[in-house]
Amino acid sequence: MKAIVTVRLKPGVLDPQGVTISNALGSMGYSGVDEVRSGKIFELTLDNGDVAAVRAKAEEIADKLLANPVIETYTVEVQP
Amino acid sequence: MKAIVTVRLKPGVLDPQGVTISNALGSMGYSGVDEVRSGKIFELTLDNGDVAAVRAKAEEIADKLLANPVIETYTVEVQP
Repeated sequence: MKAIVTVRLKPGVLDPQGVTISNALGSMGYSGVDEVRSGKIFELTLDNGDVAAVRAKAEEIADKLLANPVIETYTVEVQP
Repeated sequence: MKAIVTVRLKPGVLDPQGVTISNALGSMGYSGVDEVRSGKIFELTLDNGDVAAVRAKAEEIADKLLANPVIETYTVEVQP
């Protein structure tokens, strides 16, 4: 069973990587890109169990290890 | 209009970050996590246009700047 944890910076938190990509796109001639925000994705392969238990475990892992709750938010998607 | 570009390592490519997270989970007492694979996500805010054009642009940007096609694959999701 897979749990996909997507970690994004909270709105308003500076994203230097995103700004750098945005500037690079400008100098590569791409117009019309207003903003780039970067984030991380983690694909956890977990032992099978019921979806609710897997989701709860992935959320706990995201809280404790994968995301910094001060500046980041996360979403968890469970795939059977 | 938003385009979400998700960049993942190709299967078989070593993922030291994922291995480190997996080991850390082991020492934190989490059992049942078989594998962790890490990736990146980029949220591009683009000028409005038709979905196909926005998708094509995001794919071109992913190809040229966001992903390394030798070791990574990407998916593009367009949100109106």
